[in-house]
Amino acid sequence: MFHPLKGKIKSFLFPSSESRFICYSPVSYRTNFDGDQTKFDLKAYMLQKINVVNKALDAAVPLRNPTKIHESMRYSLLSGGKRICPIVCIASCELVGGNESIAMPSACALEMVHATCLMHDDLPCMDNDDLRRGRPSNHKVFGEYVTVLAGCALIARAFEHIATTTVGVTPEKILRVIGEFARLIGPEGVVAGQVADLKSGGQDQSDMGLEKLEYIHLHKTAAALEASAIAGAILGGASDEEIERLSKYSRCAGLLFQVMDDILDVTKSSQELGKTAGKDLLANKLTYPKLIGIEKSREFAEKLKREAQEQLIGFDQEKAAPLIAMANYISHRQK
Amino acid sequence: MFHPLKGKIKSFLFPSSESRFICYSPVSYRTNFDGDQTKFDLKAYMLQKINVVNKALDAAVPLRNPTKIHESMRYSLLSGGKRICPIVCIASCELVGGNESIAMPSACALEMVHATCLMHDDLPCMDNDDLRRGRPSNHKVFGEYVTVLAGCALIARAFEHIATTTVGVTPEKILRVIGEFARLIGPEGVVAGQVADLKSGGQDQSDMGLEKLEYIHLHKTAAALEASAIAGAILGGASDEEIERLSKYSRCAGLLFQVMDDILDVTKSSQELGKTAGKDLLANKLTYPKLIGIEKSREFAEKLKREAQEQLIGFDQEKAAPLIAMANYISHRQK
Repeated sequence: MFHPLKGKIKSFLFPSSESRFICYSPVSYRTNFDGDQTKFDLKAYMLQKINVVNKALDAAVPLRNPTKIHESMRYSLLSGGKRICPIVCIASCELVGGNESIAMPSACALEMVHATCLMHDDLPCMDNDDLRRGRPSNHKVFGEYVTVLAGCALIARAFEHIATTTVGVTPEKILRVIGEFARLIGPEGVVAGQVADLKSGGQDQSDMGLEKLEYIHLHKTAAALEASAIAGAILGGASDEEIERLSKYSRCAGLLFQVMDDILDVTKSSQELGKTAGKDLLANKLTYPKLIGIEKSREFAEKLKREAQEQLIGFDQEKAAPLIAMANYISHRQK
Repeated sequence: MFHPLKGKIKSFLFPSSESRFICYSPVSYRTNFDGDQTKFDLKAYMLQKINVVNKALDAAVPLRNPTKIHESMRYSLLSGGKRICPIVCIASCELVGGNESIAMPSACALEMVHATCLMHDDLPCMDNDDLRRGRPSNHKVFGEYVTVLAGCALIARAFEHIATTTVGVTPEKILRVIGEFARLIGPEGVVAGQVADLKSGGQDQSDMGLEKLEYIHLHKTAAALEASAIAGAILGGASDEEIERLSKYSRCAGLLFQVMDDILDVTKSSQELGKTAGKDLLANKLTYPKLIGIEKSREFAEKLKREAQEQLIGFDQEKAAPLIAMANYISHRQK
């Protein structure tokens, strides 16, 4: 099976230690990238997609027996959220010629795994956070053992959902999606980032710290977005080159998302964020503001946004508009 | 997608409250069932299969970067164990005309999920057990957060392994295996049993207790064995009727396994078992010996063994010998 980026995730953005952030070379960009915001109504697009994704998620994990485990799964899965992974999945699928319905089972599966990450991240043995999306975190409502198990159940349900409800594409493509999806959320993807993140408290603030932080964010957040883009692209019938470009887009966008998260953690209140603000600082975790300061973090975010958008040159620009605008949105989000 | 037993798992063994254990009707059996033990060398068969499964597991989860998470995964995955799920998967595949290599990725995946269950079961928020297979349990060695994440990583790796390494069968069959496998380990399968088990402490010892105990064991243990048999059967090219019979076999064998586990928990020492003995009693958990006594538990186990073996009538008896003997083995195991 084709792995366009196997082994490259660490080296793509910063192929050697010499080319890390401080040496990041400027590139030229088409001036209409930012201008696309005025032509494309991202807010309306996202609201429409969020609405349809929420309905699909509600149907994908109905309130069945045994109720307690399903309530726990639904509590975190249907508690709002930006639905960025599902939207990137659908937008990638549509970009290369597919449609929303083909991508929807994978889009839902991505959100199920995302919910698992948030549920487990909040556990006392991890970030020990009582608040998530403005509500008590999952284990505060259902208890730790239910949260651990409900998270695992959501992973299983995610794969069941892709395998049994995806229609309109060949079984070969569905299998390829399952393989890529599993690889990117597994021990060399999202889980690797989570473990590294939890180990990062109290680390040094040297160059080694910056390298480690890139690793955490590229795995923990960017890998999930990469799975979204790859799944959508495969299902939509993308060529290998198109898959590669969408992978790069999603890694840049994923890292961008996390840099912004780090910035928001130190600049916004808990009320504004709907989750505990300043917790990275309290936990003495590595963050971009801590390592390079707020201003340089913002500059880095801007560069990542342009790098992401550059990957979309050559695609039909009308169809690429959602992903172009998503990168803008991520770089300007306030919560 | 075909679900031979969807919605039936609760009602198959005990279709109504009137037909529960105490009213269980006797059936006649061919006398050569037990006699097969003398014709078929199960010990040699199991040792050969355990050896090949262990090698396949070692290769399926190699010690890669990041090492800590992989060490945690491998610690529990490669710590011995009976490998009953993989062996049932392979034996079911061979029974219906398939071979070992076709079944091996699914066999390994089943053991990965089994390892996750054991790792999570031992956590302080669940059974809080320090000992597993004669060694410190996973979280005592790697810490709770690593154990939670390594368990999730094993689930993801399980699906990746089936999707990317199964060869010799159509993609449709592989997808069907993934769907059945996910359903049976998910919120209506193994996870449902785990949640019910953890909630069962201090429950009443009435008929309701017996019904609840059946539910726990049928979901927690029997569903995993059912996934094993179904996966092997699908991959081996079984008919729907053959899949149905192997499902029933595995549910009986799974419940049998758990009844024996309950019996061993109160009759053996920790040293003999390689895990903490008497812990169900200490946790005031529902068990068969507690509800109906040791002797009636043994009688029930015997009946389940015969019920399991009855499902194999009509198959090539030479090819069915491993599964026939497995039921004998489970009912006579000492640890």
